[in-house]
Amino acid sequence: MKINGTWYRPIWPDEDDPGLVRVIDQRRLPHEFAVLDIRDVDTAIFAIKDMVVRGAPLIGATGAWAMVLALRACPGGDQDAWLGREAARIAAARPTAVNLAWAVDRVAAAVRGAEDPEERISLARQLALEIADNEAECCRMIGVHGLPLVRDIHKKTNKTVNILTHCNAGWLACVDYGTATAPVYAAHDAGVPVHVWVDETRPLNQGARLTAFELAAHGVPHTVVTDNAGGHLMQHGMVDMVIVGTDRTTRTGDVANKVGTYLKALAARDNSVPFYVALPSSTIDWNMEDGVREIPIETRDPDEVRFVQGLFDGALVKVLVPPEKSQALNVAFDVTPARLVTGLVTERGVCGAGEKEILGLFPERA
Amino acid sequence: MKINGTWYRPIWPDEDDPGLVRVIDQRRLPHEFAVLDIRDVDTAIFAIKDMVVRGAPLIGATGAWAMVLALRACPGGDQDAWLGREAARIAAARPTAVNLAWAVDRVAAAVRGAEDPEERISLARQLALEIADNEAECCRMIGVHGLPLVRDIHKKTNKTVNILTHCNAGWLACVDYGTATAPVYAAHDAGVPVHVWVDETRPLNQGARLTAFELAAHGVPHTVVTDNAGGHLMQHGMVDMVIVGTDRTTRTGDVANKVGTYLKALAARDNSVPFYVALPSSTIDWNMEDGVREIPIETRDPDEVRFVQGLFDGALVKVLVPPEKSQALNVAFDVTPARLVTGLVTERGVCGAGEKEILGLFPERA
Repeated sequence: MKINGTWYRPIWPDEDDPGLVRVIDQRRLPHEFAVLDIRDVDTAIFAIKDMVVRGAPLIGATGAWAMVLALRACPGGDQDAWLGREAARIAAARPTAVNLAWAVDRVAAAVRGAEDPEERISLARQLALEIADNEAECCRMIGVHGLPLVRDIHKKTNKTVNILTHCNAGWLACVDYGTATAPVYAAHDAGVPVHVWVDETRPLNQGARLTAFELAAHGVPHTVVTDNAGGHLMQHGMVDMVIVGTDRTTRTGDVANKVGTYLKALAARDNSVPFYVALPSSTIDWNMEDGVREIPIETRDPDEVRFVQGLFDGALVKVLVPPEKSQALNVAFDVTPARLVTGLVTERGVCGAGEKEILGLFPERA
Repeated sequence: MKINGTWYRPIWPDEDDPGLVRVIDQRRLPHEFAVLDIRDVDTAIFAIKDMVVRGAPLIGATGAWAMVLALRACPGGDQDAWLGREAARIAAARPTAVNLAWAVDRVAAAVRGAEDPEERISLARQLALEIADNEAECCRMIGVHGLPLVRDIHKKTNKTVNILTHCNAGWLACVDYGTATAPVYAAHDAGVPVHVWVDETRPLNQGARLTAFELAAHGVPHTVVTDNAGGHLMQHGMVDMVIVGTDRTTRTGDVANKVGTYLKALAARDNSVPFYVALPSSTIDWNMEDGVREIPIETRDPDEVRFVQGLFDGALVKVLVPPEKSQALNVAFDVTPARLVTGLVTERGVCGAGEKEILGLFPERA
């Protein structure tokens, strides 16, 4: 997608320097546009942990590139053992999104047969490019399959379709197009009038900072609201549908997404508002059946709750909100049970949030 | 209640100057303790609108004192007509809490028979003191009636009772003790171990700023969480009960409270967590039956959503979070339908959230 007319992805390999991967520093958006240079595994892990990059698909792509950098740094000896240790470090950077472990495992498997270090690097590099391209293509297809859902509402109401989303499951999270935003962009580009309610998404405000930034850059009408507002909006008919992303989806359709998603799903159900989850199948954990019990939920630094970052006097600063001595808890995700999900929008089509329905689209997983 | 060992109420008349009412400036807590001097109706209206004072009971008390100041400024002529115009201005300062109009009307009615300006001022002053004292006493009784609810949970579990609350319905909002916090303080003081999950309560963070401040000052263990976190906490058995306040309650038990309350009520219901609303009967609007349809919901300045206030470099500053050009909507309250409310904790006892149950405690309203 474009920023001020220039086409960007949130991650890309440098054209000239094979040891350099570059990412948009999402911690500083929307007020500053900065690029972080990643030349080693430690920096890649830092970028994932500190949320320079975030969003399940992008974390996966970053993990794949981290594996390329790991292979480049391999000191010789037992290459697979070295890579295994590096892979474990990378995969542990964030626990909730399944894409990270998935991408890292794929790269490890792809190079396992090769002996020549250069060949291993080349194979990994090719796969990292493929993973990123595949995420982008999946997102494009989510837009293709999600567009009719938006268009159908417009046909019924003949009014602007009001879509609520939580966090940022946009192109910044997903290499391109986004997951939750793909149907929005597709509808907007197809001339279906849409307006997006953007949950600010505390603590890190990825909605207010990133989703609003993306939508503004693409010219999609939107309004930022607090995370508290969605229930009221739905009670008063101001939301036609909810679309969110997911960091991990069980084979039964439970969905782990940014904390607070579950509350919006409850409000959608209470007000008969359709609640869709958009996802590339790379976020499906085929080994899990009970999301609330099984999906590991990341707890992050309490200071992300205590401090809020924003623009003051031309500079990005962090302000302390609660009393200095009050402690805080920072739970990053929650799980929305499948029973609250109207449908899953995947790269292969839309299905109900249930094992049978999901396997209908992905029969090879049966 | 006490701040650093000194007893305070959030509003009090100056001992020496009969034309001066003083309030704690709640906009600057917890990082600064400041007092605003109110000498005229305009300043009182400013204090209510700008949330120097906030919380339904305190807004009512402030409205009563504003009427005293209005009477002191009466230029002569038709005193009731003058007071009527001032009363309308004061009551319009904030639309959702019913206490404001209620307190203003009571003062207007109390002075209507009197001719002598000094007598009118004296009557109003006496009533303003009474209203504040009555709110404090109601809150104390809410604590008396709410304590057994907390104690019963402790008896069953023999563990610390985890109570989640939203916004600030503490003594800062309520002259003394608080509504939602009254059972918490009562339990803590009675030796029942409690821990409070404090929703930060965006946009103005009254939870993180004020509830955390109060609880810290009183020594009650507490943890600040984002408004998004409550659903996850309830899913994982980390919340034993929810207690919130209310700005207006219908005679049928629908509850208007700070926006986001409805989402917590939904999560409580979905996880079988008891959801209590604590209220003095002054917040009951005996003329309303359908809260979602009838209670006017205040929309406030979008900049309260766009900017977050906190401490930076020793000073209170406001930082801009979303892109400069993204618009925001600031809905201040939402309505929780009675069907989601386990019980109402009033100054006369606990009852179910239904017309019949409420009238059982307040038969004079039948």
